[in-house]
Amino acid sequence: MDKLVISLDCMGGDRAPQIVVDGAALACARYPQVRFLMYGDNQQIAPLLDAHPGLAAITTLHHTESVILNEDKPSTALRSGRDSSMRLAIDAVRDGHAAAVVSAGNTGALMAMAKFVLKTLPGISRPAIAAILPTARGETAMLDLGANIQCDAENLVQFAVMGEVFARTVLGLERPIIGLLNIGVEDLKGVEAVREAAVILRETTLPIVFKGFIEGNDITEGTVDVVVTDGFTGNVALKTAEGTASLYTNFLRDAFKSSWMSKLGYLLAKSAMQKLRTRFDPRRYNGAMLLGLNGIVVKSHGGTDEIGFSNAIGVAVDMALHGFIEKMTDDFNSLQADLDPQKEAAG
Amino acid sequence: MDKLVISLDCMGGDRAPQIVVDGAALACARYPQVRFLMYGDNQQIAPLLDAHPGLAAITTLHHTESVILNEDKPSTALRSGRDSSMRLAIDAVRDGHAAAVVSAGNTGALMAMAKFVLKTLPGISRPAIAAILPTARGETAMLDLGANIQCDAENLVQFAVMGEVFARTVLGLERPIIGLLNIGVEDLKGVEAVREAAVILRETTLPIVFKGFIEGNDITEGTVDVVVTDGFTGNVALKTAEGTASLYTNFLRDAFKSSWMSKLGYLLAKSAMQKLRTRFDPRRYNGAMLLGLNGIVVKSHGGTDEIGFSNAIGVAVDMALHGFIEKMTDDFNSLQADLDPQKEAAG
Repeated sequence: MDKLVISLDCMGGDRAPQIVVDGAALACARYPQVRFLMYGDNQQIAPLLDAHPGLAAITTLHHTESVILNEDKPSTALRSGRDSSMRLAIDAVRDGHAAAVVSAGNTGALMAMAKFVLKTLPGISRPAIAAILPTARGETAMLDLGANIQCDAENLVQFAVMGEVFARTVLGLERPIIGLLNIGVEDLKGVEAVREAAVILRETTLPIVFKGFIEGNDITEGTVDVVVTDGFTGNVALKTAEGTASLYTNFLRDAFKSSWMSKLGYLLAKSAMQKLRTRFDPRRYNGAMLLGLNGIVVKSHGGTDEIGFSNAIGVAVDMALHGFIEKMTDDFNSLQADLDPQKEAAG
Repeated sequence: MDKLVISLDCMGGDRAPQIVVDGAALACARYPQVRFLMYGDNQQIAPLLDAHPGLAAITTLHHTESVILNEDKPSTALRSGRDSSMRLAIDAVRDGHAAAVVSAGNTGALMAMAKFVLKTLPGISRPAIAAILPTARGETAMLDLGANIQCDAENLVQFAVMGEVFARTVLGLERPIIGLLNIGVEDLKGVEAVREAAVILRETTLPIVFKGFIEGNDITEGTVDVVVTDGFTGNVALKTAEGTASLYTNFLRDAFKSSWMSKLGYLLAKSAMQKLRTRFDPRRYNGAMLLGLNGIVVKSHGGTDEIGFSNAIGVAVDMALHGFIEKMTDDFNSLQADLDPQKEAAG
């Protein structure tokens, strides 16, 4: 089995470096082929590694002193974060030392540095943030979740292609179905960019299964495998879904506590309720992908624990094992040829 | 007790006129002061009224033959729907025969006709659709839910004022807190219109409690009493929340069915679970308000039943009893003076 090196920004996230090291320990039990490059403060990390001799044996630790803070602006991070743990972890991917990087740090800084260091893949103007969500039928990938607040039709079409490749390679779907998020008032159907993107996706000769417009409720119904939208709408939709699930969980807890009969009912249904909780466990879906870059970059939620962080590592491993970047490059070459036949003919 | 007349479009919605008449019967038991003007097909409605002698006694039925279909474009409805049940029910409000109109029909047509017939209130450029949602702390009003796909800062500010008046008069909150929906990436915080609207709302001398930006999860957390957003984002957020609640309900059902222990647990917790279901019952929150018009217009969900429709009537009754239109007019006069002091001075 070939070794797979993952570089970790050990200093990003609310409880770093503890959850990063503990998460890596969980991941190395799950993925025996993985090796780690860790970037961060030696003094804090070395003692944590001592607790995991197995992990320590497959890890190379690089001491860094500078840390990107959550409140740092992307521009500041770019300018003065060249020696930061986040930046050096990304550099490791560019230099071929690692197949992917995982960070629980500042999203804006991570995106800006990853874009600057790794560059976007040919044909992609803007990277996007994608995540996997639970649905009634299984799982759905959604993008963009906040990297691009306003998008034109071309951006949305590129997101659709990126999402399609992701669903095919990482989710293992043969012909993933793509939907464009829109609203239901027939006569006013959607902003111009969304309408234009639909026209392009309907007419493309790329082998994409385009369902057309979908609405907010279709996200969790699992109507499509990939939900495409701009970063503003996607971010609001994702957080609204998270908030609603959490509200429901609270209401459910209240309901079980409301009488001695229901408390007894809870005791009997406890293991089923734990399974339910697992289905909505945000840690299970931790690990957002920065798609469109020439390298695999996974963003962990900053507030996650070691289980969540190990899942983010899992996402990076999956993408690397499935040759995500190579498949993206191929598909974008076809897309370019498809969108610009004249240029192709001339070339 | 003064009588309150509500006009009903009896032909809108999936199961009209049955659910409209049955819903009105439920409402007249709840609101003894209500009288109804019904618009629709005599032949279908008269036999339904026969089943509710109490309702029949307080109802005046106007026969109409033309019906606005769900697939009709707003422009078509405006042009050729002058004799439709929807249009005549709206006309009754304009002519002072009814204090409010309720329809479960085509939203786009209802908005277009209501705007044409009733006009917007002075100072309001675009009406918005608002609804009440359940939250961890009680209830929150959200607007716009789809009437205006793209909004400028001025539109958003007007929505904030409309929502504030709504929360004060109908939800009975003394100083409702207003939030502008945005996304969490600090450096890129929001589209221009959202940022500009925040500046205006922060600087206004109107007695509005403006919380600032909120995110998708704040909707169900009940961080604010009024969530202001454009119609595209609001529609997606609302439907995403509905879809997530429905997904959770399905997962919960699966969980209870997963073993005989959990089935037994369900039996014990059944009445608590029914209360939980009630908290998320979409019928409970049925009745979206078309705000900003010179008249009270309530849109019922097209797929609702008689319980849902009776709640939509309840929303109309509440708004009428609380003098919503009068308070809106007052507040917009102040807003105009506030936004345009020069004009005021010159006048």
